Amino acid sequence: MTYCLAIKVEEGLVLASDSRTNAGVDHVSTYSKMHTFVWPKNRYLVLLSSGNLATTQAVVKRMRSEADHGAGIYSAPDMDAVAAYVGRLSTDIQKEHRERSNADFEATFLLGGQIDGHQPEIFLIYPQGNYIHESAEHPYLQMGETKYGKPILDRVIRRDTPLELAGRCALVSINSTIRSNLTVGPPVELLLYRNGGDARLLSLSEHDPFYRALNDAWNEGLKHALNGLPKFEWEEERRAAQFVQEGGSGTMR
Amino acid sequence: MTYCLAIKVEEGLVLASDSRTNAGVDHVSTYSKMHTFVWPKNRYLVLLSSGNLATTQAVVKRMRSEADHGAGIYSAPDMDAVAAYVGRLSTDIQKEHRERSNADFEATFLLGGQIDGHQPEIFLIYPQGNYIHESAEHPYLQMGETKYGKPILDRVIRRDTPLELAGRCALVSINSTIRSNLTVGPPVELLLYRNGGDARLLSLSEHDPFYRALNDAWNEGLKHALNGLPKFEWEEERRAAQFVQEGGSGTMR
Repeated sequence: MTYCLAIKVEEGLVLASDSRTNAGVDHVSTYSKMHTFVWPKNRYLVLLSSGNLATTQAVVKRMRSEADHGAGIYSAPDMDAVAAYVGRLSTDIQKEHRERSNADFEATFLLGGQIDGHQPEIFLIYPQGNYIHESAEHPYLQMGETKYGKPILDRVIRRDTPLELAGRCALVSINSTIRSNLTVGPPVELLLYRNGGDARLLSLSEHDPFYRALNDAWNEGLKHALNGLPKFEWEEERRAAQFVQEGGSGTMR
Repeated sequence: MTYCLAIKVEEGLVLASDSRTNAGVDHVSTYSKMHTFVWPKNRYLVLLSSGNLATTQAVVKRMRSEADHGAGIYSAPDMDAVAAYVGRLSTDIQKEHRERSNADFEATFLLGGQIDGHQPEIFLIYPQGNYIHESAEHPYLQMGETKYGKPILDRVIRRDTPLELAGRCALVSINSTIRSNLTVGPPVELLLYRNGGDARLLSLSEHDPFYRALNDAWNEGLKHALNGLPKFEWEEERRAAQFVQEGGSGTMR
């Protein structure tokens, strides 16, 4: 399985992915699922891939090869055209593979990026080649093992969430998924794209000091949050009773 | 769908359930999924039900009726026997229904409780009638929409977690699920059972002041936890640069 997500906030985009691939439990390995395509001052594109590895590798290869000839993602006029193009490549390649076998060749993609003169955008591209974008009410998209990491996004992510905070939230979302599900694993790749072209890419292994510090701080923060929750009625009563017993009321007035 | 969970800590048991049932999106209603069977100073049993509503209602009805005649859960010598009995009732009833139709009559149960002279126990009873108990390494069991609410349990619940804290953690786990999934809904029922027989049962509607206060406090706590996470390297650099620009270094010494 896989867990990837893309967030669009006012300041820019966050894209994050795990790196575990598996075909059955005895065929587990590590592949980057984050592919960047950069032409400075012209376009910045990021593709996150999940599903059949042969399909996703072929899609990425063809994207690079056609862009080298000035076509495909290099000539697409806007992000919508890029999404449609990736969807077309994906279904074409699946069709080629299905001509030789009946196995499951499906692949799903998250696409994010900006083309000069346009706003940054993110898309979820389905195995059928069609796609959706995010919305102001729902400013993030996920694929793969989406459920474990969804509650924190639902509670935190808004359009006006600062970019770096959204990035930390994405890391927490992936980290929670990794802890709860064996088929999602490090390294975690995180890309923060600030509107206009400034991008930061991190690849965080499980031993990375920043990743560990983040995990520890999150654990501490959650414990603190739990300890700050309102007590049950009877706990208050018990505490009040103890207070009286210990002569607390005698010192009151 | 449904989300129910059972936790066993040193001090006792926590059982929690949502109350939404649905058969398709235009057949949504509210049923309690928590059924208690109490014989003071003899046995305290709680059954949480999910799956086909006709099956689970029939199981509960037969449990009550046979217990009234001194059989079934009333005569079971230990919790293991209760779990086996519920599994048998469930498969019997599914079989009766399948003789008349091919629909899906499956049901899953969480069972918790204590029989005088024994330790409290919790079980997950599968549609096939077999069952598992929790373990010291994994002191909780879930059924239904389990993924959204799992990360908080994985990070917090240990055998030595205090009972009331485990109860609050269960509420957070269910609340997160309700926020992220339409097929899980309030009221939330929560039972805290302290070893020996002291039990507290809460039914929390979404407008319940305690439930709302808990939800608000959790949102605040999460924001605080997020704000306490370590900053990215470049944020520190930017902050240091601002500090120098603002003459900060000049005022040091």
